[in-house]
Order: sequence, then C-alpha cells, then structure tokens
Amino acid sequence: MTATAPADVDALCRAAADAFTTTLRTTDAERAAWLRAGADALDSAAAELIPLADAETSLGSPRLTGELARTTSQLRLFADVILEGSYLEATIDHPNPTATPPIPDLRRALRPLGPVAVFAASNFPFAFSVAGGDTASALAIGCPVVVKLHSGHPRLSRRVHEILESALRDAGAPEGILGLVDGREGALALADHPAITAVGFTGSIPGGRAIHDRVSARPAPIPFFGELGSLNPVVVTPAADVARGSALAEGLAGSFQLGVGQFCTKPGVVFVPADSALEAAVGAHATTPGRMLTERIAQGFADGAARVRDVPGVTAVAGDGGSLIAAVDVDTLAAHADVLLEEVFGPFTLLVRCADEQDLLRGLDLLEGNLTATLHSEPDEDVDAVLSALERIAGRVLFSGWPTGVAVSWAQHHGGPWPATTSQHTSVGATAVRRFQRPIAYQDAPERVLPAALQEANPLAIPRRVDGELVLPRR
Amino acid sequence: MTATAPADVDALCRAAADAFTTTLRTTDAERAAWLRAGADALDSAAAELIPLADAETSLGSPRLTGELARTTSQLRLFADVILEGSYLEATIDHPNPTATPPIPDLRRALRPLGPVAVFAASNFPFAFSVAGGDTASALAIGCPVVVKLHSGHPRLSRRVHEILESALRDAGAPEGILGLVDGREGALALADHPAITAVGFTGSIPGGRAIHDRVSARPAPIPFFGELGSLNPVVVTPAADVARGSALAEGLAGSFQLGVGQFCTKPGVVFVPADSALEAAVGAHATTPGRMLTERIAQGFADGAARVRDVPGVTAVAGDGGSLIAAVDVDTLAAHADVLLEEVFGPFTLLVRCADEQDLLRGLDLLEGNLTATLHSEPDEDVDAVLSALERIAGRVLFSGWPTGVAVSWAQHHGGPWPATTSQHTSVGATAVRRFQRPIAYQDAPERVLPAALQEANPLAIPRRVDGELVLPRR
Repeated sequence: MTATAPADVDALCRAAADAFTTTLRTTDAERAAWLRAGADALDSAAAELIPLADAETSLGSPRLTGELARTTSQLRLFADVILEGSYLEATIDHPNPTATPPIPDLRRALRPLGPVAVFAASNFPFAFSVAGGDTASALAIGCPVVVKLHSGHPRLSRRVHEILESALRDAGAPEGILGLVDGREGALALADHPAITAVGFTGSIPGGRAIHDRVSARPAPIPFFGELGSLNPVVVTPAADVARGSALAEGLAGSFQLGVGQFCTKPGVVFVPADSALEAAVGAHATTPGRMLTERIAQGFADGAARVRDVPGVTAVAGDGGSLIAAVDVDTLAAHADVLLEEVFGPFTLLVRCADEQDLLRGLDLLEGNLTATLHSEPDEDVDAVLSALERIAGRVLFSGWPTGVAVSWAQHHGGPWPATTSQHTSVGATAVRRFQRPIAYQDAPERVLPAALQEANPLAIPRRVDGELVLPRR
Repeated sequence: MTATAPADVDALCRAAADAFTTTLRTTDAERAAWLRAGADALDSAAAELIPLADAETSLGSPRLTGELARTTSQLRLFADVILEGSYLEATIDHPNPTATPPIPDLRRALRPLGPVAVFAASNFPFAFSVAGGDTASALAIGCPVVVKLHSGHPRLSRRVHEILESALRDAGAPEGILGLVDGREGALALADHPAITAVGFTGSIPGGRAIHDRVSARPAPIPFFGELGSLNPVVVTPAADVARGSALAEGLAGSFQLGVGQFCTKPGVVFVPADSALEAAVGAHATTPGRMLTERIAQGFADGAARVRDVPGVTAVAGDGGSLIAAVDVDTLAAHADVLLEEVFGPFTLLVRCADEQDLLRGLDLLEGNLTATLHSEPDEDVDAVLSALERIAGRVLFSGWPTGVAVSWAQHHGGPWPATTSQHTSVGATAVRRFQRPIAYQDAPERVLPAALQEANPLAIPRRVDGELVLPRR
C-alpha cells in the first residue's frame, strides 16, 4: 500500500471537480441507476470481499455479511430517497406585489455542493468506509467523492473502490466520480483542497478535532460533518432493575461486547440503582474478547481500561484480562469525570450506582453529547425529568432496547451534541443527503432556464411547497 | 450606553438556559402568540421607533417605515411557519423486522437547540438587528436569544429590546427569553459561553471571520451561521445592452445607491459588453450620497474607493466626491483581483468590460461566493454557460431585476458560498428556523412519552413522513 502524494490528491480533486460539471446535469433517475448498479456489484462480490474484510478487521464473517447487506441496502435507500424527490425541497412562491417588501416570483430548490471528501472509519469496513453512508449520500445527489481510506483495512478499501467505481462508470457516471486517497499527508491535502466543498468524517475525537480545526481554518471554510465519539448512556430505573435486572444484565453484556465493543453506539456508561440486580448478574456474562481491529486500537483499549482501574473508588465487577465492567458511585464519577467519562473504545462499560433520582440527574449532568441514550423503566414510573435530561444530551433516545445496531431508514438519526457529531445533521438515514446540498433561489426566472423541479407543471411529479402549502404530486 | 461586563453576560446566558427548560415544553400555538404579540407591540411603537432609528442611522423615514413593516411581517411569517408544522420534519417508520438491519419503531422530529447568540448588523437596524430574522426564527422554535447589539444604533437596540421583551413576557414567554449585550468584551464572552448552542451573525468579513474562528475553537464547537460579504455580480449580455442599456443604467444606479449603497445585496460588480450603452448612460444617474451609517463606515467607503481608483487601468465613470462608478477590463480585474474584488461597502460599483463570452466567463471565475447574481439577457440568447457560472457562485439568481430588496417568504434564500454565508442555510425566509434545530429520533418509545408531533394519531394535524411516504393532514 502506498501513500498518496499531494500532487495525486490534487489530480483526484480536480477530476472530481470536472466530474461535478457533468453530475450537476444528471437526473435523479440516472443517479439512482448508478447507486443500484454499485449495490449490485458489491453484492455480487460478497464471496471475495467478506474474507478480505475479515482478514483485515477480524470482525468475523456473520457480522461482515450483515454489514455488507446493510451497506448495499443503504445505497438502494438513497436511490429511493432521490426518486421520491422531497430532498430537493422544491418551493415556489408566486408573485405577491402587496407584501412588504413585494414578493417576486421565487423558486427555491436544494442543489449539490460539489466534490465531497469522506474520511472512512475503522470499525465499519463496509458501512462507514469507501462505499458507506457518506459516500452513498453524496453520490446520490450528484456530489463526486474522494475517500480517505482507513489504514485498518487498506486492501479491502482499494478493492471496494475498484468494484464500486467501475460499476458507477459502467452505469454512466463520469470519470472522477470516486477517488481514493491513502496516508496522512494525503489526508491533509484532501482537507485543504480548494475543490472540496464539504467533509464527512467518522472516527476518534482527537482525529476528528484535528480535521475539524483544519477545515475551519481554510481561507474559505467549508462544512465539516464529523461523528467523533459517544458514551451512549443507559439508565436503568429501580423498578426496571427489580422487574428484570438479570435480563437487562444479559442484554447489556451482549451490547457492550458486540463486535469487541468497537461500535460508536456501544453503551459505555450505565446508571443503575445501588445494589442492583443488574450489577449482581452482569459479571457472569463477561467474555474473553476477540481480536480488535488494529494493534493500536487494542493498545488504546488496554491503556484506557488501566486508567479507569487506577481511579480510587472504582470497583472492577468483571474483567481480568478481558472485557471490563467497572462500577463507581456518582461522587467518584464527578470527582474523576475527566478519566471516567473519556470514551474507552472496546469492550468496556462503567456502571454508575445512583442512590436516588437526584443522584442520577447529577450524574447525567456530567455527560457531554451522545449519539444515543437508553432508558429502561416500567410503565407506571414518572420518568419526565430523566427523559428531559436524556433528550438534551443525545440524538436518539431508546426505550427498552440497546443502542448497538443502527437501522437505515427515513426516520433514523445518527448524531447528537458535540462530540457525538459536530452538527445538527445525521450520518445515517434519508436526511444524510442534506449535508451536501445548498439552496438556490431563482427570482423571476424564465421557465426555460429553471431546473425541472421548479418548473410550473411539476414535470418530476415531486412534493413541492407552493405559496406556503405543501402539495403532493398526483400519481 | 454601557458595555456589558462578562459577569452580566454570564447571567444573561444562564437566564436563557433556564428559559429554555420552559420554552422546550411550549406549544407552537403559544410561541406563535408570542411572536404576533411582539410584532403588534413594535408596530404600535412605530411613531417612536422610526425617528429614533433615523437619528442613529440616517436611513430616512420612508425606508425605515418599510423596514419596520418587513420586520414585523417577518415575525408573523415565522408564526405561520411553526403552525404549519412541516418545520418539525416529523418522520415515522413503523417496525420492519425483515430489513437489514431490522427497523424498530423509529420516530424523528427536529427540536430546538438551546439558547442562541445573535450578532446584529449595522445596516438594517430593524430587520437584521434585535428583532430581526435571526431572533424571530430562533424564538419561533423555542430557542431563547441573547443579542449583541450593533454599536451603530445602541439606543434603538435598547428600546426595541425593551418593547419586544416586554411583549413576549406579557404573552407568556419566560424570564430570560431575550437578553441584550453591548460592547466587544461582552461579544466575546457571549461567543464563548457554554450555554450558547448556536450563533447567528450578520456583518463584515473580518468581523465574521473573527467570531467564526472563536466559535470553531470552543472546547465544544457550535454552529456559526454567518452572513459576511457579497459582491452580487450582475451580467448584462450584448443583446440586453442593445435592447435596453439605458434603462438598465438607471436600474443599476437606483440599486447600487439605494440606502447609500449599504446593502448586503448591493450590486458591486457589473459585467457589461465593451462600449456598452449602459456604461455610457449610467454616470448621469450618480447622485451625491447621503450620510452613511457611522463615521467608521464612511471612512471605510472612502478608503475602499481610493484603493480602487489607484489601480492602474481603472477608469472613473462617475463619482467625484460622491457615488463612485469605475470601469476596468477583465485583464485588469484578473491582475488586481485582491483590490478590485474586495467588497466596498457603500455607493460603489465596478463595471467590467467584456470583449466576448469567453472574457465574461473568465471574469466570473475570479469571484468568490455571493448572496446573489443577476442576469440581464434577451429571450433568444443562449445563456447556459453564464447561468451555470452564476449558479455556482450565488445563492439567489435573478433574471431582469436588481438584487437589493429581499422578499421574506417561503421560497426565499439569503445565503451563498463563502464569504456570502458560512453555511448552506439561509438567513431569510421560512427555512431559517432550521439553523437552530437538531433531530432527535425516538426508538420504541411508549406513546405517552412521545412529543405530540410524533404520536400515532397526529394530534397536531401536521404533514408527516410515514414509512417513507409524505402524508398531509386532513383539514
């Protein structure tokens, strides 16, 4: 594997900019066909790709088979999203000379930004990598993509790139539609390149912060859409613990150890009652973890776990040489929040023993932003205060489930206050396309120059807002 | 006028955070009533406010009367926007166990971010100031606001704040709903305050860049929505110049001198054919400009105009001691782009003489992002290449009009590539609310804890997307 030289990054970004002049003029139907062709090609290559992914990531064939299926269904979802047409947000105001100021004929739609840089993640070698959600959502709306591959799975990245790029090209996409960059120097050149109009990033807080700061310092700043880190707090109420503490222990153990704990949505901190049935039962479900994604990640896990163990007041519930479950009270959590609330990527979770709801709310108040928050309670409990606290710190709030496993659908949201993500936008689900769009309003434009989405007769038959009212197409 | 001490900024931001715990639970109908009460109160105070605004800004009673009406109609528009309900983007996916991965019950809606800081502009003492679009859009969705007043109209700012805050409170809004900060030290404390969740800014490129960089460097970065600067290019084709060059000259003169040229959307660069009728006619319409907003702005205009005059190859078409119209060719523009394409805030416009379309496209290629771009052409001309160039650099593209005057409506967009704005969002029009929202997805939530927007029976009777399909309420 060779690092990409800055001159080659420049060539890839220029090719993407050239491609954009073509993709801008493509129809939704054309791009939907590209995405479906890409999905079909990746599905057809499953027998080759899954062993290759397993060799580089040790995630195992069942998980990787599911992840590839998720990745190709994601490409197909974005085809559906663009064909449905609401993503264009077509809005028409007919003239109103009596308004203050007078309203001319105004027609607004969202348009693709331009070439997008995607920084791939380590832990989802398909779903958040070369052919992942950032790439799919950008391509769907006509933004060429240049991917910085993750060094944890370089061979898979190159092969997925070859297959996807070739399928896109065969389906009619222009040269330059999908570039691939390797190495740190190439990554920085990519973040700086003037042809790049937005950045999607999934990775660690330090790595994401570095790219965020670099992108913010550009002479012309561009949007940075990062997904950086998350503790994914879980709250178990006293009544839930009494009713099903031992089942919850098994569920928690399954979730925090899934994929060797290498999920952005791994439950990393669990607020439980003092003397909980959950705590009593969970240790029995700790397993000897499998091999982690990379040596560096394994070392990071060992170091992080050691830092937690060294904090005075921390009890190890389970975890000699394997998955670690530790427990603290809220006072200890507050006194050592810098260590105890730092994400430990891997099979670690921290139980926080709460004396009462006051204690719980004090604990939740110590948390930064999260992708998810989970509440296990019983139907007759008053959870208003807890739920408010969870809504304020998380982008997805779950009831009676576990946060690992992220459905790809219209209503999904994968994001949250910093450092979960840097923005109000989602990395997963239908609205992920909006990260790479910007509005253009046309004022008093002749019909012949308007995009099809904004022509009076609605030739695309899409939902539009006309004079303030949402109008569905006749189908 | 006294500067606000950092301790007082802290108190205002904490009060806003406290207010947010209340506003979060208000209904759209309640907040719509606040906005309408605020609009009514400001309208009722017109006889007091307009002379006060004129004394501080010299913008004149007719313009200020129109601007106040625009400002109050903007408050009322946002009341309509939230009552219509699409702004919540309510999306429901019912469970689908056969999807990969399986889809649980997922329900997503946009929620208010939290307290918002608004940095007011100098040039619209009503419409982009204390009661302006940023404030209106934030309040509409339940985000308390702390405004940094503009030093160009401090007395008006304080009075508008008193009237609006009092009307909001009388209509039921909580204490802390609207704070006001004065002075540079207070501005920085506001940008840094941990309770602030987003920043809206309208002003100069250097000022906006400074706040952008400060906000980006926060330990937990927050979104910065800035509107910084724009040249608002106009293109006059040879056929349009022949057909109506002298009328276009009059229109241009009216637009670039409107409000003493102190508009974000002032046409600052006009691409004309060589030997144009427009250039021949426009000088006659140059007027002696009125008093500018502040001494500092007047000095900035004089300095900027002098820098342009000093560039070799620049011809002064009109402008001894008053409005300045200068002309250059594209070679000169390219050689001195750093000076000639710097925004000169005030009654200045630059004519760029183009030999042919090639020359024109080369000139357009020198431009950064803009709020607007305007094309004057004739129906039988092929304008595809020019239009593509304009779409790539501007957020609003006008045909046969002038960019000054920004209608406030559903389809409006006021933004564009950097430095016009820093983001893909608009500062004017219905979708401005989205800057201050973030999604929350509820997974397998019991009906009783769901926000009304997401309850199965659609009690708010709003448009929603259900299982991928947009569904309108029965009314």
